[in-house]
Amino acid sequence: MSKPETIHWEGDANGTLFMIDQTLLPVEFREIDFSKGCVEKVWEAIHSLRVRGAPAIGIAAAYGVCIGIQPVLNEMDEDKFFAKLNEVIDYLAGSRPTAVNLFWALDRMRDVANSVKQLMDVTQTFHPMEVANRLLMEARAIHEEDREICRAIGRFGAELLPDGAGVLTHCNAGGLATADYGTALAAFFWAAEHGKKLHIYADETRPLLQGARLTAWELKEHGIPVTLICDNMAAQVMREGKIQAVVVGADRITANGDTANKIGTYSVACLAHLHNIPFYVAAPKSTFDLTLAAGEQIPIEQRSPLEVTHGFGKQTAPDGIDVFNPAFDVTPAKYIAGIITELGVISPVTEENIRKVLG
Amino acid sequence: MSKPETIHWEGDANGTLFMIDQTLLPVEFREIDFSKGCVEKVWEAIHSLRVRGAPAIGIAAAYGVCIGIQPVLNEMDEDKFFAKLNEVIDYLAGSRPTAVNLFWALDRMRDVANSVKQLMDVTQTFHPMEVANRLLMEARAIHEEDREICRAIGRFGAELLPDGAGVLTHCNAGGLATADYGTALAAFFWAAEHGKKLHIYADETRPLLQGARLTAWELKEHGIPVTLICDNMAAQVMREGKIQAVVVGADRITANGDTANKIGTYSVACLAHLHNIPFYVAAPKSTFDLTLAAGEQIPIEQRSPLEVTHGFGKQTAPDGIDVFNPAFDVTPAKYIAGIITELGVISPVTEENIRKVLG
Repeated sequence: MSKPETIHWEGDANGTLFMIDQTLLPVEFREIDFSKGCVEKVWEAIHSLRVRGAPAIGIAAAYGVCIGIQPVLNEMDEDKFFAKLNEVIDYLAGSRPTAVNLFWALDRMRDVANSVKQLMDVTQTFHPMEVANRLLMEARAIHEEDREICRAIGRFGAELLPDGAGVLTHCNAGGLATADYGTALAAFFWAAEHGKKLHIYADETRPLLQGARLTAWELKEHGIPVTLICDNMAAQVMREGKIQAVVVGADRITANGDTANKIGTYSVACLAHLHNIPFYVAAPKSTFDLTLAAGEQIPIEQRSPLEVTHGFGKQTAPDGIDVFNPAFDVTPAKYIAGIITELGVISPVTEENIRKVLG
Repeated sequence: MSKPETIHWEGDANGTLFMIDQTLLPVEFREIDFSKGCVEKVWEAIHSLRVRGAPAIGIAAAYGVCIGIQPVLNEMDEDKFFAKLNEVIDYLAGSRPTAVNLFWALDRMRDVANSVKQLMDVTQTFHPMEVANRLLMEARAIHEEDREICRAIGRFGAELLPDGAGVLTHCNAGGLATADYGTALAAFFWAAEHGKKLHIYADETRPLLQGARLTAWELKEHGIPVTLICDNMAAQVMREGKIQAVVVGADRITANGDTANKIGTYSVACLAHLHNIPFYVAAPKSTFDLTLAAGEQIPIEQRSPLEVTHGFGKQTAPDGIDVFNPAFDVTPAKYIAGIITELGVISPVTEENIRKVLG
């Protein structure tokens, strides 16, 4: 994407990592410049959600390893070098202890380091810059793989959206959560780049307002027409004939196609069903959990009542009020017209078709 | 209602008016004590939305007239007294120039004053306290009539709700907008007072959060179990089997039963329909506009984008973002199981049944 990138690396192994500070959006756009060797700053950025979204966290951590070893790029003692490398990887793993992509990316970095080390041990040579370059290559590969997934989802998704369509989306399944195009938003970016005119309606997405803060910002930055609505207005824009399709992301998809996603997604799916509007889910293959038969098996996490009662620096509900605040909901496969993956569109959504497309 | 009253008058014509300052809710409960003769303070309370809701504004203005004439209760010059009275009425009429109930209530007060004056002119007597007492009686009558309407709606509404039911409501159709029990909330108060156990789910109701700020507060004050949810969670609580009925208020009902109410009401009606949950509207006869055939004839007001983008004392969306912010939406009669009025329940909702019940 030509617009500001969520994460990017400039230069060789001695280079610099940049990330958009997402905690300041949408009021302020600021890129954090990770000065050489300052892995603590990368740790803090992941920990404090300056970078968020499973793919983006993995990529940030991979580049974080490259930042972390910069102070030892002249270290000719192999043991000291690798001790530092392992220390950096272990340290970064503690930045968000529940983020699966974080461990997955750091494991890939460690595996690369280990295989380079083995090779060097055989040849009895040690070049710290060579290890560092190989690690940067791996981080770039993780980054590039995610970009390719986003682009493929974008291409398949864009094909489903008619020129001139109004499209509703919920939460933020955009570039800020990934390396590049995102998932649901990838379809809009791809369509726009290929001359299709869309008008996006973004649900603000209570309680944390990812739609207002992030989706609206991303689409505006890309010059894609976007109108922000409160979640309870989705039915009205559908009724007024403004919406021809809905595209949302996914947190987890079960074997039968039931889809867990940000709270409110199920509501949108119901409304789309009632207004005869196709409802699509955009998600990479990695989102599918085929060990779960159906959505009922997904436990729904309850989050802090404060997100609802004190969400914006101001108390907006009585003290001690009981709050129901599920993190996500599950949309049954029967309301999903298609699931857009990097391998193609699964439609109709059946267990058989899911297994066929995912291979 | 035994709990704090939206508006109440203590004493005779020399007495005092009290109102809950609704702008401080739900964080602070404070009653404004209108010191004798200070009609400017009443004007300000109506103007600044310290009191809100059509019936409550009418009642506040009527009592405001009683406050306004307190400085001239010893004025024995009839012309001077009535000049002051008319000045007070004209002054209060300017506090909220679009509130129909305000003019209606002030007209009733003026009519009473005029008929008392005529009678006094015939008998050639003038007693300022007698006029004042008659005006206070009229204000109390306006108050009492609204209370009776609320109670009747409450009684008819409560009959529709099964003991032990979970009931969803949207926005604030409660006592704070009326003299007493409100409309939708009247059914919950009546049920609770008559031993029925209900659990209310209150939509927070974006953008202005009347559900979080006012409905949750009122129900809590009355000791009725209430759970606050974001609007986009309504579908999920329905899906989990927590909701057996929906009751909402209304701004305007057309001859065929189509109902305009706070934005998001239509969404709730769609979701209730899809989950086979009865959806009721509670509204006094005065809400019906039989000159309009159907909901399409109701123009939908767009409100300021700032309500959505800067709603909580903090900017939550990008600068200059396009916003769709309709004040209300229209729920078609086909999704309404019944309309609860002070004259009985209209069900099924047809033009014929509406005219039959309203008489």
